[in-house]
Amino acid sequence: MIIKLKQQSPHKQIEHLTNWLTRQKFRVHLSEGEFETILGVIGDTSALDVHAIEGLEIVEQVIRISEPFKAVNRKFHPVDSVMTAGGAQIGGGHFALIAGPCSVESYEQIMEVARAVKAAGATMLRGGAFKPRTSPYDFQGLKAEGLELLRQAKAETGLPIVSEIMNINHLDLFNDVDIIQVGARNMQNFDLLRELGRARQPVLLKRGLANTIKELLMSAEYVLAGGNPNVILCERGIRTFETYTRNTLDISAVPVLKELSHLPVVVDPSHACGIARHVPALSLAAVAAGADGLMIEVHNTPEKALSDGAQSLRPSQFEALARQVRRVREAVQP
Amino acid sequence: MIIKLKQQSPHKQIEHLTNWLTRQKFRVHLSEGEFETILGVIGDTSALDVHAIEGLEIVEQVIRISEPFKAVNRKFHPVDSVMTAGGAQIGGGHFALIAGPCSVESYEQIMEVARAVKAAGATMLRGGAFKPRTSPYDFQGLKAEGLELLRQAKAETGLPIVSEIMNINHLDLFNDVDIIQVGARNMQNFDLLRELGRARQPVLLKRGLANTIKELLMSAEYVLAGGNPNVILCERGIRTFETYTRNTLDISAVPVLKELSHLPVVVDPSHACGIARHVPALSLAAVAAGADGLMIEVHNTPEKALSDGAQSLRPSQFEALARQVRRVREAVQP
Amino acid sequence: MIIKLKQQSPHKQIEHLTNWLTRQKFRVHLSEGEFETILGVIGDTSALDVHAIEGLEIVEQVIRISEPFKAVNRKFHPVDSVMTAGGAQIGGGHFALIAGPCSVESYEQIMEVARAVKAAGATMLRGGAFKPRTSPYDFQGLKAEGLELLRQAKAETGLPIVSEIMNINHLDLFNDVDIIQVGARNMQNFDLLRELGRARQPVLLKRGLANTIKELLMSAEYVLAGGNPNVILCERGIRTFETYTRNTLDISAVPVLKELSHLPVVVDPSHACGIARHVPALSLAAVAAGADGLMIEVHNTPEKALSDGAQSLRPSQFEALARQVRRVREAVQP
Amino acid sequence: MIIKLKQQSPHKQIEHLTNWLTRQKFRVHLSEGEFETILGVIGDTSALDVHAIEGLEIVEQVIRISEPFKAVNRKFHPVDSVMTAGGAQIGGGHFALIAGPCSVESYEQIMEVARAVKAAGATMLRGGAFKPRTSPYDFQGLKAEGLELLRQAKAETGLPIVSEIMNINHLDLFNDVDIIQVGARNMQNFDLLRELGRARQPVLLKRGLANTIKELLMSAEYVLAGGNPNVILCERGIRTFETYTRNTLDISAVPVLKELSHLPVVVDPSHACGIARHVPALSLAAVAAGADGLMIEVHNTPEKALSDGAQSLRPSQFEALARQVRRVREAVQP
Repeated sequence: MIIKLKQQSPHKQIEHLTNWLTRQKFRVHLSEGEFETILGVIGDTSALDVHAIEGLEIVEQVIRISEPFKAVNRKFHPVDSVMTAGGAQIGGGHFALIAGPCSVESYEQIMEVARAVKAAGATMLRGGAFKPRTSPYDFQGLKAEGLELLRQAKAETGLPIVSEIMNINHLDLFNDVDIIQVGARNMQNFDLLRELGRARQPVLLKRGLANTIKELLMSAEYVLAGGNPNVILCERGIRTFETYTRNTLDISAVPVLKELSHLPVVVDPSHACGIARHVPALSLAAVAAGADGLMIEVHNTPEKALSDGAQSLRPSQFEALARQVRRVREAVQP
Repeated sequence: MIIKLKQQSPHKQIEHLTNWLTRQKFRVHLSEGEFETILGVIGDTSALDVHAIEGLEIVEQVIRISEPFKAVNRKFHPVDSVMTAGGAQIGGGHFALIAGPCSVESYEQIMEVARAVKAAGATMLRGGAFKPRTSPYDFQGLKAEGLELLRQAKAETGLPIVSEIMNINHLDLFNDVDIIQVGARNMQNFDLLRELGRARQPVLLKRGLANTIKELLMSAEYVLAGGNPNVILCERGIRTFETYTRNTLDISAVPVLKELSHLPVVVDPSHACGIARHVPALSLAAVAAGADGLMIEVHNTPEKALSDGAQSLRPSQFEALARQVRRVREAVQP
Repeated sequence: MIIKLKQQSPHKQIEHLTNWLTRQKFRVHLSEGEFETILGVIGDTSALDVHAIEGLEIVEQVIRISEPFKAVNRKFHPVDSVMTAGGAQIGGGHFALIAGPCSVESYEQIMEVARAVKAAGATMLRGGAFKPRTSPYDFQGLKAEGLELLRQAKAETGLPIVSEIMNINHLDLFNDVDIIQVGARNMQNFDLLRELGRARQPVLLKRGLANTIKELLMSAEYVLAGGNPNVILCERGIRTFETYTRNTLDISAVPVLKELSHLPVVVDPSHACGIARHVPALSLAAVAAGADGLMIEVHNTPEKALSDGAQSLRPSQFEALARQVRRVREAVQP
Repeated sequence: MIIKLKQQSPHKQIEHLTNWLTRQKFRVHLSEGEFETILGVIGDTSALDVHAIEGLEIVEQVIRISEPFKAVNRKFHPVDSVMTAGGAQIGGGHFALIAGPCSVESYEQIMEVARAVKAAGATMLRGGAFKPRTSPYDFQGLKAEGLELLRQAKAETGLPIVSEIMNINHLDLFNDVDIIQVGARNMQNFDLLRELGRARQPVLLKRGLANTIKELLMSAEYVLAGGNPNVILCERGIRTFETYTRNTLDISAVPVLKELSHLPVVVDPSHACGIARHVPALSLAAVAAGADGLMIEVHNTPEKALSDGAQSLRPSQFEALARQVRRVREAVQP
């Protein structure tokens, strides 16, 4: 950690800060330049509070050099983590093709989609039972009934299921869910993350609309620090000034996350873009960039979808895409 | 609502959509131009799902003309809402000067700050007991004990208290809290908002880092739709590419929110900026722009603060600022 | 175009506006709803000024339905444009692999890089002679001498050359340059664009850091409107809140631009990311997303580069990447 | 400057870098921690190229500690700069109230507006003759004729005039213009800035839509480094995800710029917001935050304006605003 001091800081106060750091077993090195004085703090500074130090009268700026994340950090865990969910694997060369409707709507709908995506090569089934909606007047999901319909689709097709949790009080309802999803709007709902540290299933953690790559890793750190080593990171688009697409897919996050962390990285092109006809191009881009999986919205009759219809593919389109995904995976194989 | 259709859409499908809308009691008007065909949908479209319609094969784009928010909308409620919390008022000409430490740390700390800010003219006391922290290794607040210390400060000074809730299961602990704050990271924690619709206290709702003005209003709509008419909107900075300040205070949000809604609007310059020495300039700007209140971090000895020290004023600085706030309020009085 | 009027606008003023529009040969349709009144304006509204109409007392909002761009619009020119530059082609299935150093530094450097990238499969050579630098104290390029060195590299290797213009007064110096590049910071230097409408070479137009996809197309429209039909669009990353990468590559811009326009689209992953080791992943993503070309920085000894060294590949890395690019292109071939 | 090295960097390469820095008269200090090795570089590093060093094999990250700007830096020039333009002053307590139409349209228009704003208390007249327009089909300004009309308005009212330059070849036309404006889209047109270093008039430099505060200062540095000490910095809104206002006024830039630099800072609320009815609130906010001036669009009959009508005030509205501005200035006087 680098602490930049203000010009003409009293020597006494600099000494006071240096002593405080030394007492905590940090090595401190002082460099005095013509225009600025710098303290280099050496040791594990992850528990030091940047803002508290910035609050000191003599401090102009604090710059963290080490990453504040530990458990998710590839430096301390160089090998790819591999996760198992309902028989399927993800990470370390195992690719997850997760597909399904935005919302579970009915028995017929989820069965039809589940069979179709399985036939096309999907390895997991997704479906929303609890839906975060911007407006209180929009459809909020079938809730417990939706989870039960997903369970039935799993029983019939054998596909592991992925569904989103919005409230920690619902955790018991997720017993048969193989991967618990945390939505972008809850990425920094720290109480929820902490509780999911006690879940036994992998957590698929979506990046928040305005969250940096490092904040995503810090949120994953909450789950790992709570005792659950299985977090799948999900890039799903960030909010920028561009309005043509719903969000901006940050494709660079794929190689960056894979370098910084050992956790698997999946991409959700459907939410990133919001336009079904551009989902195939973004899916292939994600695979080419090295993603460990894709999460794609598929709907049997998109025009009837109660939510997010604009971003869902039909089964036949998904099937064509799945074929291309396999070809691109082979092309980028080392 | 305007629905832009794709070129050469089959007449049959256009008719199908038109009939579906007509059955729901909307008036529909079709305009055929050389390069595009437009459906104008007239009526209360707030319950129509934009994305579901965008999912239709024949639809190129859907544009909402009416605001989707109702209960918070000034069009349907032209008079300023005035809220009462522990004897203090806010809105409709009543100004709230809310001050206090980022985190409650000890009996001595909260008492000293409470007395100091009251003497300087604060009308409410703020203090965090549950703290949302990016890192699981950072201080997370004194929790229930922090709320108890706030209660004691209120008993002694008479100042109503404001504190943040992070988990709906804690609601019972907030019985003596006069205004319940929802933090920026929970602005779209819809389950929490829905439950706060049942609280009897006003809710101070902070704008999320990447949320638009309209999304803030939609989140407030959740609380009002749940039965609680008392929401105070809080602008606290949005996330942009600028890194000199912690966030970018969106000062325009003040006049825009006051035009769109009857709810009071307060500004939190401390979190918006993150640099204590710039808090006074931003506070005065907020007052000049028409804010109904300010929420400012004040700490007795900033260098000891366990969190957010960089953005806290000392009591003497707050006192000078409070005087200037009063002068600017007078200057902009109509 | 949709014009949303304010509530209770005087009938007289509405009539005045309607007549003004009708006189300009637009068809106008008035819809009066309970809460708003809408004018639908039908015809070619590209020359109507949105802001001037928004300035009218009775107008609440103006929404453009048609795209304001014409010459670059695929609707009016459905077939891919193919451009020829110094013997190489781009667009309509012809892929351009453009490579070279950020800045031309010396005869030895440009020759060595030119030979190496040609051997690896590059189809064009890039190199900066005039460099836009944030600081007036940074190296500003070899200028005319740099262009002369590029000309020599072209003479020897046969590779067409691409270089950036910063000032229209330098146009004569670019006689032997096969593609004239306009940098991101000049994307809205409209005087420069207008003059390039008179150039006979294709223009490679980089998207500005804060410019939307539609603004990029409007800037290309300037060149086409000026008489030069050959513009190559270049996505090179936009500015967002994420600071890990230098910019955020907007991969979605590739399929969106190709849908909206007939012009070729290339991607510059080197500037988008700023980190050489992530350039291969982003390059392959761009190819998988359908880009017509790549522009990649390659340097013989990156540690000696006087500018942008961090984002340059060595020739051996470029050669490995070029092989993978060919494999991914085959995989995504229809 | 801090250079963070990669783990296990060869000792030889570290020594090589250290020697290279030492030869350039920097003092270098090496700190070896458990997980990282840091080089502290002490001396005037403003001419060192961050990216070139980042390109080195052994370097993970380079962090600049000193500001790279010199001539504009308050550290080296603590006293406010005061500029004189056509008799009016700005900076160091002198407030500039600049008002006028977006575009000069006719003799009658500019005369009427000039007289009205002078009567209301404006100290300078603005008016666009060369207009940067997103679309090649929009009105591009009256050009030389517009400048001549401004000159006549100056002759009659005595108000100094401010107008925008888009092309350095037009500099001779600006002989009678008292302040030369550089628009947001040209903030990094470095060739233009360099040439304006030779102009004898003050330059009003607008912040680019996606440019940081530090980049604005670096662009000002170009003008000062070129020999012209008179630059007025102008905050006019940045581009964010919020679409309700045209841009987001970064009010924090006012106190930050005034702290970092001795140059005067003005705010343009008209372009920042794009909505005339919110211009007064933002103007007062800017004054309260400490701005040295305002630049406000005023139009005699906004509905006839050929450009940017939505953001123009009528003279009577401007007059009321000017009165409030004076009251707020008094209120924030120390």
